[in-house]
Amino acid sequence: MHPEDFRRAAHELVDWIAAYRERTPSLPVWSRVEPGSVRAQLPAEPPEQPEPFAAIVADLERIMMPALSHWQHPRFFGYFPANANLASVLGELASAGLGQLGLNWQASPALTELEEQMCLWMRHLLGLSANWHGVIQDTASSATLVALICARERLTSYAASRGGLQAEELPLTVYCSGQSHSSVEKAALLAGFGRANLRPIETDETYALRPDLLAEALANDLAKGYRPCAVVATIGTTVSTALDPLAEIAALCRQHGLWLHVDAAMAGSAMILPECRWMWEGIEQADSLVLNPHKWLGVVFDCSLYYVRDPQHLVRVMSTNPSYLQTSADGTVTNYRDWGIPLGRRMRALKLWFMLRLEGAEALRTRLRRDLALAQWLAAQVDATPNWVRLNPVHLQTVCIRHEPPGLEGEELDRHTLAWIGQINNSGVALLTPAVLDGRWMCRVSLGAETTSQEDVAHLWATLRQIEA
Amino acid sequence: MHPEDFRRAAHELVDWIAAYRERTPSLPVWSRVEPGSVRAQLPAEPPEQPEPFAAIVADLERIMMPALSHWQHPRFFGYFPANANLASVLGELASAGLGQLGLNWQASPALTELEEQMCLWMRHLLGLSANWHGVIQDTASSATLVALICARERLTSYAASRGGLQAEELPLTVYCSGQSHSSVEKAALLAGFGRANLRPIETDETYALRPDLLAEALANDLAKGYRPCAVVATIGTTVSTALDPLAEIAALCRQHGLWLHVDAAMAGSAMILPECRWMWEGIEQADSLVLNPHKWLGVVFDCSLYYVRDPQHLVRVMSTNPSYLQTSADGTVTNYRDWGIPLGRRMRALKLWFMLRLEGAEALRTRLRRDLALAQWLAAQVDATPNWVRLNPVHLQTVCIRHEPPGLEGEELDRHTLAWIGQINNSGVALLTPAVLDGRWMCRVSLGAETTSQEDVAHLWATLRQIEA
Repeated sequence: MHPEDFRRAAHELVDWIAAYRERTPSLPVWSRVEPGSVRAQLPAEPPEQPEPFAAIVADLERIMMPALSHWQHPRFFGYFPANANLASVLGELASAGLGQLGLNWQASPALTELEEQMCLWMRHLLGLSANWHGVIQDTASSATLVALICARERLTSYAASRGGLQAEELPLTVYCSGQSHSSVEKAALLAGFGRANLRPIETDETYALRPDLLAEALANDLAKGYRPCAVVATIGTTVSTALDPLAEIAALCRQHGLWLHVDAAMAGSAMILPECRWMWEGIEQADSLVLNPHKWLGVVFDCSLYYVRDPQHLVRVMSTNPSYLQTSADGTVTNYRDWGIPLGRRMRALKLWFMLRLEGAEALRTRLRRDLALAQWLAAQVDATPNWVRLNPVHLQTVCIRHEPPGLEGEELDRHTLAWIGQINNSGVALLTPAVLDGRWMCRVSLGAETTSQEDVAHLWATLRQIEA
Repeated sequence: MHPEDFRRAAHELVDWIAAYRERTPSLPVWSRVEPGSVRAQLPAEPPEQPEPFAAIVADLERIMMPALSHWQHPRFFGYFPANANLASVLGELASAGLGQLGLNWQASPALTELEEQMCLWMRHLLGLSANWHGVIQDTASSATLVALICARERLTSYAASRGGLQAEELPLTVYCSGQSHSSVEKAALLAGFGRANLRPIETDETYALRPDLLAEALANDLAKGYRPCAVVATIGTTVSTALDPLAEIAALCRQHGLWLHVDAAMAGSAMILPECRWMWEGIEQADSLVLNPHKWLGVVFDCSLYYVRDPQHLVRVMSTNPSYLQTSADGTVTNYRDWGIPLGRRMRALKLWFMLRLEGAEALRTRLRRDLALAQWLAAQVDATPNWVRLNPVHLQTVCIRHEPPGLEGEELDRHTLAWIGQINNSGVALLTPAVLDGRWMCRVSLGAETTSQEDVAHLWATLRQIEA
């Protein structure tokens, strides 16, 4: 496509996107199409000859629009806030337009150095010390896999250079909270530890990992000849934003020489607020840390920040150095290919740079404080209303609730819960995600979409009250 | 950022990008900034208050532009063509603007189903059978890691559900060509096999894996009690685009029950040309396959296609199913989170959809045929010129060359080679990547940038001839 054609089409697309964002509040939050309905409308083969751009815009409207779930909707209360702030969208556009590829520093000095500086800017915003070194990865799932592989290699004095994990005589074990995100188990399995060597530790009444049980599990495993390797602690669990007690966990990790990886994928954004930093007290004792600016903070997916204390170990585990990637700058520069799994990388730091500059740090703090206040407001309504139960301590932006009419319990209560959540989701008015807590279904109300206002949360609460009728 | 502000800024950015692409040919291909020069110009902290968009555009020009290496330049002959076709840039913009996140089908039916259909379109274009099932991943590095983990789990009857790789008694081994990409070794190490269990097999005079030596290595390992697990064959090696003999390798894999993964990251794009498909004859016998439309084909990075024959095994190895990701559509739909490492995924299929529709398949074939012809032309010039040596069979778009003045050999020749490549790169006229072949440095001329014309290659050749003086 020639630049002149791009110019014309891109202006049209920009207007279409701006209009989409303007009309989002009037759309049903959740797509209600049937499986297969999108594919049924698409040709079986690509066209041989070019089509006009207007045909694509028409299909975006006709085929795609009904099949979108609107993550940018003000009444999107599902999963987690995955804000795609429009300033960061500009950064993504700039990245694509420049077509940079960071195989090494020389392949795009700007790409590497902007990423280094944005990791510094974020470290500053989050109140982290200068002991942390950052890199942008795609997701927390990948970052946690990288962390567990680094842990594995540290404990085995870099077994990868010898017989690998399969040559180790005593099994390495990994610990996490029973409320950990599914990506922790997935990472442990992919890294070769095996499910039998993963120890999900029971949680307390706030759904936080119990350090006494962790200590017990460690003692048990040591007695049986296992080799404890790593703990994954979560600050802000997915289901209920529980806070694992980091300082106590870190003390155990120090005592036993374990790798401590902290999953703050969602809640990490809140650490731009000094008043929230008590939640991850002890963070400076961790070995690695992941948080996703592509969630609550607002950077359009993907932008996951992975910080480590010892980049030399990270590079040792992840690096490759074939002749075709060597340059004379090696040794004096950062080659981010050695900080994660993929070799190629795009200029994702532009998304952070654009957003932080066009919004300013103060506005980001103000927005997150708004969401914390909205969560408190909703929690207060629930607490004050008969037959409604709040199930989690609300430190952050997620309120776990259940409607418990007298006499309903067990599976009957589950059916009721899933029924009213489904009803609201199908109505298109709001989007809520059901999840299981203490063996029973409940409703997560995850606040934090960029455009959510007090009116939207009040509207949700009014809608919830209607299910009582 | 409000849609109205976005509209204004985005129009400005679109014009800036179009102008960038128009002036790219006049820019030096390679950045010549010093390490640290970009960071030195960036503030240590993010701004508290919003800055105007004009300030960002000014910094793009002043700070970023001199520190970019122009992958979209018509005389970019380094690494591999990483084309960022402007139609695909529009797709990336649409993806960012819509802010979709594909945690499961329901979270964005359009995201999942468009990806399924684009994998079908590409399968059709590539001449692959209906036995293949595709997914978009970020890079071939990640795809190869996924393949080796799947191989590991198939051979061990899903050891991940038990004691993992560390519980296996006899070591699993992995085979590849000595010319394999560095990501193959990296994947084997990350997956826990260990370097001692990776067998790089020697190559023949065309730099292709020798199946006789592979057979020998397998027999040796079996005799010693190793458990051969997987072979990674490469169609189009990074250094010289060598073609591993797939059909013969596949026969050995069938005989021994090995997983065959094919790395066609770069050369896979050529398979849209029927006359190139002899190069991967035997592909239908493989278990998995990766090719990168984000290279020669033109889709802006990242867009790596991973095809497998048995998606059930892939899902078994990669899947997670926590309560908060379950929906009533599960079982009847594809949940792509179970087809790779990351959970979240953006709507990358839009990039393929936009490009295939706005360019049309015929134009893509025409462009790739142009590049094949340009490579033949350059090879012919080299072959016809005294003191110039062509080092590889030119099937594809990479010509490996060396200037060998009489009397120069060994390390002296290496110094000469690196000196003239450095001189051309520093001149900004063209970009060339040196690499080692048969223990000696040589020059890869990797054709295929979207805007490269016959004049650009002639210009390169004239520049090369000048080094003789």
